[in-house]
Amino acid sequence: MKRNDKIRVAIYGASGYAGYELYRILKRHRGVAIKCLTAESSAGKKLSDIFPTTDDAAIMRNDDVDVKTLDAAFLSLPHGAAKEVVEAITRTSTNIKIIDLSADYRFDDAAEYEKWYGRKHTSPDFLDDFVYGLTEINREAIREARFVANPGCYPTATILGVYPLLKQHLIELTEPIIIDAKSGVTGAGRKPELRLLFPEVNENVSPYNIGYVHRHTGEIEQELKKVAGSELKIIFSPHLVPVTRGMLNTIYVKLKTDKSTDELTGIYATTYRDEPFVSVLGGDAIATFRHTINTNASVISVKKVENSPYAIIVSSIDNLGKGAAGQAVQNFNVMFGLEESEGLI
Amino acid sequence: MKRNDKIRVAIYGASGYAGYELYRILKRHRGVAIKCLTAESSAGKKLSDIFPTTDDAAIMRNDDVDVKTLDAAFLSLPHGAAKEVVEAITRTSTNIKIIDLSADYRFDDAAEYEKWYGRKHTSPDFLDDFVYGLTEINREAIREARFVANPGCYPTATILGVYPLLKQHLIELTEPIIIDAKSGVTGAGRKPELRLLFPEVNENVSPYNIGYVHRHTGEIEQELKKVAGSELKIIFSPHLVPVTRGMLNTIYVKLKTDKSTDELTGIYATTYRDEPFVSVLGGDAIATFRHTINTNASVISVKKVENSPYAIIVSSIDNLGKGAAGQAVQNFNVMFGLEESEGLI
Amino acid sequence: MKRNDKIRVAIYGASGYAGYELYRILKRHRGVAIKCLTAESSAGKKLSDIFPTTDDAAIMRNDDVDVKTLDAAFLSLPHGAAKEVVEAITRTSTNIKIIDLSADYRFDDAAEYEKWYGRKHTSPDFLDDFVYGLTEINREAIREARFVANPGCYPTATILGVYPLLKQHLIELTEPIIIDAKSGVTGAGRKPELRLLFPEVNENVSPYNIGYVHRHTGEIEQELKKVAGSELKIIFSPHLVPVTRGMLNTIYVKLKTDKSTDELTGIYATTYRDEPFVSVLGGDAIATFRHTINTNASVISVKKVENSPYAIIVSSIDNLGKGAAGQAVQNFNVMFGLEESEGLI
Amino acid sequence: MKRNDKIRVAIYGASGYAGYELYRILKRHRGVAIKCLTAESSAGKKLSDIFPTTDDAAIMRNDDVDVKTLDAAFLSLPHGAAKEVVEAITRTSTNIKIIDLSADYRFDDAAEYEKWYGRKHTSPDFLDDFVYGLTEINREAIREARFVANPGCYPTATILGVYPLLKQHLIELTEPIIIDAKSGVTGAGRKPELRLLFPEVNENVSPYNIGYVHRHTGEIEQELKKVAGSELKIIFSPHLVPVTRGMLNTIYVKLKTDKSTDELTGIYATTYRDEPFVSVLGGDAIATFRHTINTNASVISVKKVENSPYAIIVSSIDNLGKGAAGQAVQNFNVMFGLEESEGLI
Repeated sequence: MKRNDKIRVAIYGASGYAGYELYRILKRHRGVAIKCLTAESSAGKKLSDIFPTTDDAAIMRNDDVDVKTLDAAFLSLPHGAAKEVVEAITRTSTNIKIIDLSADYRFDDAAEYEKWYGRKHTSPDFLDDFVYGLTEINREAIREARFVANPGCYPTATILGVYPLLKQHLIELTEPIIIDAKSGVTGAGRKPELRLLFPEVNENVSPYNIGYVHRHTGEIEQELKKVAGSELKIIFSPHLVPVTRGMLNTIYVKLKTDKSTDELTGIYATTYRDEPFVSVLGGDAIATFRHTINTNASVISVKKVENSPYAIIVSSIDNLGKGAAGQAVQNFNVMFGLEESEGLI
Repeated sequence: MKRNDKIRVAIYGASGYAGYELYRILKRHRGVAIKCLTAESSAGKKLSDIFPTTDDAAIMRNDDVDVKTLDAAFLSLPHGAAKEVVEAITRTSTNIKIIDLSADYRFDDAAEYEKWYGRKHTSPDFLDDFVYGLTEINREAIREARFVANPGCYPTATILGVYPLLKQHLIELTEPIIIDAKSGVTGAGRKPELRLLFPEVNENVSPYNIGYVHRHTGEIEQELKKVAGSELKIIFSPHLVPVTRGMLNTIYVKLKTDKSTDELTGIYATTYRDEPFVSVLGGDAIATFRHTINTNASVISVKKVENSPYAIIVSSIDNLGKGAAGQAVQNFNVMFGLEESEGLI
Repeated sequence: MKRNDKIRVAIYGASGYAGYELYRILKRHRGVAIKCLTAESSAGKKLSDIFPTTDDAAIMRNDDVDVKTLDAAFLSLPHGAAKEVVEAITRTSTNIKIIDLSADYRFDDAAEYEKWYGRKHTSPDFLDDFVYGLTEINREAIREARFVANPGCYPTATILGVYPLLKQHLIELTEPIIIDAKSGVTGAGRKPELRLLFPEVNENVSPYNIGYVHRHTGEIEQELKKVAGSELKIIFSPHLVPVTRGMLNTIYVKLKTDKSTDELTGIYATTYRDEPFVSVLGGDAIATFRHTINTNASVISVKKVENSPYAIIVSSIDNLGKGAAGQAVQNFNVMFGLEESEGLI
Repeated sequence: MKRNDKIRVAIYGASGYAGYELYRILKRHRGVAIKCLTAESSAGKKLSDIFPTTDDAAIMRNDDVDVKTLDAAFLSLPHGAAKEVVEAITRTSTNIKIIDLSADYRFDDAAEYEKWYGRKHTSPDFLDDFVYGLTEINREAIREARFVANPGCYPTATILGVYPLLKQHLIELTEPIIIDAKSGVTGAGRKPELRLLFPEVNENVSPYNIGYVHRHTGEIEQELKKVAGSELKIIFSPHLVPVTRGMLNTIYVKLKTDKSTDELTGIYATTYRDEPFVSVLGGDAIATFRHTINTNASVISVKKVENSPYAIIVSSIDNLGKGAAGQAVQNFNVMFGLEESEGLI
């Protein structure tokens, strides 16, 4: 790829953790030219004013982006804010591709969005234009897509964790799939909230929105139902842990048929055999945060519980990697026909 | 209590985290005189040589303790090591009381100990002499006991968490009770192991011995069966989190009868109404590590999962407090007829 | 002391870290009855609404305190806010004692306050009424005082660290006293600021306001000059470290006369011989954060630099203990003629 | 560079933190083929057995390396262990290049090594063959070198921090250069020592070997004297902070001539103008750990102290990046005439 063949991108919302991570990945992506960064609240500043970096890249307002000069846009904006950018882009061109990291276009049905997010959807008409961007599940659709809705972090870890068993109808769906999730603090965003201060988070583990309350619950159920081809119920309990980045979902499922740990591991290994970013641990190994931190990797282990029909899947991703910016770039690579791992570790 | 009425105690195994915590609690206990501290590997040193303290208390060998001068002994020794001290004490006197913090005398049946601990029991004959020291459940037996086996940290948090529902037969035991536990690192002991180094633990969450493997599984099942009056099955998945001290068990149970969150909370509040060290959170509050760190408190919240027969109990203790040294002193207070909260926060 | 002899106190500003720490200490103080807690922004709430506790103590507005019912008031308010409470108290009674934890009344001269705090002093007339509350240096004045200005955390660690040498004129004041300070995050207060978020502080060490800029610089110089009886210059460089509470100042001084480490340690040991809360480490031991965390202790070590006229003093306190709430209660105990360590660890 | 042109390297000592970091950097280096990894204590294992990775690279014994197949060797071995590998390589070939990360060949004089490391030097004859590998200072010599002694982490941060002023004779050397250093825990190596356990390090800051005691003191003085062209004295006080990786040295120097912060910053900016891995912060910005973590960057800020002849330099590197593996690869790139930043972030 020659220099002037570079794909020209904008990062909307570069002052958050996911937006900045997008920037760091795309800076080392050999096929990309970053044209501009935006952040409404930091417009006029430099990147080094808002992050501990020596990079002086300029930050502008969304409206100041010259959309015509772009080939693609990454949107890492607050919920509800993508609409205006999507409109500006569709008005300007029929080619510019969008990867949106918000939840705005992840739901098939605006009513579900409104139920889980407690707010009116700003642009339900766009919903049909977006493909749900869990790369490993929807790669072919993503390849053809112009607009991709990048999945949430908890949904990514959960769906990758149960997909192999669910697809093969090995899970007894009379009982709920129980997901006990642990997340690093960057997953909560870069907002000056009291509950996110260092002394509040440090030396603490905090469950929050447990059971059937957290916004990602609906997204997870929507996608798992498609995989299962049937109704199912999840219980989802996230916990905030004193770690900057990382995520690990411990998932409890009841099996329909007896399978040993080795058999289960074999099913996962086969399912993800050709995946560049999913690894399955065998033997006694169990996935941990450190298996995936600072990477786009998803690492999964599965263990049968002795003398019990239950199995335990542990699914680890970096919430800013495969759970946000990494997967966004992975999808971008698929959409533009590039090497899927370009720019990614 | 006059000065010369103080109960004379020894702390065996003062170089570990639980032993040192015992020392710190007993130092501020107004009814106790600490006669001696032991630690085989640190004998001859001062406390300030092995902990960041200015306290120069001497550390001696177990054998150098003048047992005759004691009224009570706290044993915080490695598994299997309590036997010799128990023998020395029983040989010397029929009065000296013992609170043992190891697992050696927690099982009713030596075979169960041997199965879970993978080692021959050194002194099965003593098993009958020890009362299982979960204060809230066994207070009357503890009051009469000469020897108390202090419970493990995970069992304490779990049993207190499910006791109210289990006792009232509200849990559907056809499905396992699923315990997803998170523990601070002091729970792993003070041993120079690679896996416990700061850079291995920091920025990490590690599941270990998940399913039906961890040693505490047998202890939990033994005690829960007694409460339930029937067989039951647990799944127990501990996770190491980058926190010095603290523990939180997220427990998933299937209910026999539909109960609202308020009804469930009411059952817990009633059960623990008179308990000085158990608090039940109502409303939206959920227990966290910080509710109990540096205290002997147990804090519990219970939530019904919407449109589901399941409930989620979150049970928090400090693994060195109610999970070890705190409960040991609470039991000591009960055994000697003192104010139950003396010395404790 | 009988129940009705208890000293009745109010804590103004109980929603901050120091205010809450005051509450926790005073709750276990046997000579105190806490009459009320205030916090302007949390008035009407309970303590358990704003901290992870099961304590439901009510929080009211400053103006709603019935000052007549008090014997003493602890003020842990934002800079400039103490004035109104001091006025209300002086208007009501000539007996109620005040311990103020803000910087408002620490300076001898309002101009110095205004220079370092960049704001007009609200009530310079009160300055003369307050005694600077570094207990070990000013104990006799504090005993007689009605109003005490509790020192800042950095000044407390620094002054205790250099006092023995400075008082004996052993420091060569032609060179500056260089103070390289490391502080836990609670020292920055409980405010929702971006820079204090967990992901900003974690895995980071941040110098800030280094050289001759930080507000505590003036307070330190004022007090050190009194000890030295002469002019002197300090360089003060604070660093934020990823720890909840704790503080350690590494202090570099040039000696006038050659002294060995043992001789220097002897001078410190003699100076603080009778102090209940100051310990001096000898031998190879060096003070660390953990020597003082969760206590009112000050722990100091001093080492001569080999083949050099310089010495290095390491002075550790807990910023919320001896650096704020602990010292406030110590001063309170002195002011009311109580055991100096009552309520303190 | 074609595939079969790749430079074939071995990493000796891959089970430590620096060795593993070398592996991670060299894996993404486009000009390198990693031929083998060694670790005496883990020989026969896979990388995934000793680190949280899914990479199954084999680990062998030092003696099992087929030296003839190598173009270069990175040695990340314990002190004293490099000798045998250097001998094996020099015996086999006159071309294979070596980058040694230990302290064994950093000193010009074996006696200095023996004084600071308290052990007999195993191979003083090799000392003359090694170039001290601080890239920015010795680039031309490194370009011609066959053997490079990679600098220590503290020396790298310190020397880069004072080099611009020292070289221009702007520092008043009658007073010592005072270096107050803060290091992440990986700097202490991957050894199962009690003092490095999570609960010992967490919530703590520990000064150690302060004054004129730490082994890096001699290395720093040796190199600074060469820059200054005269004698000088340093005081060096390292502190362990609860961070996995990162390093920040706060350096206090007395200036010979009055210079403003802007003038000083200008001197640094000019000195490092063409350096790809050194950045100088201007304005109010101060270097922090986060400026350099996970990179090979060195970030420096310099501030004049108001009304004082002193200046404060803050010099940040990642102890595993520019302080170890990063600089080793930077030197490797220079030695082989590659793009200096290849493989590095």
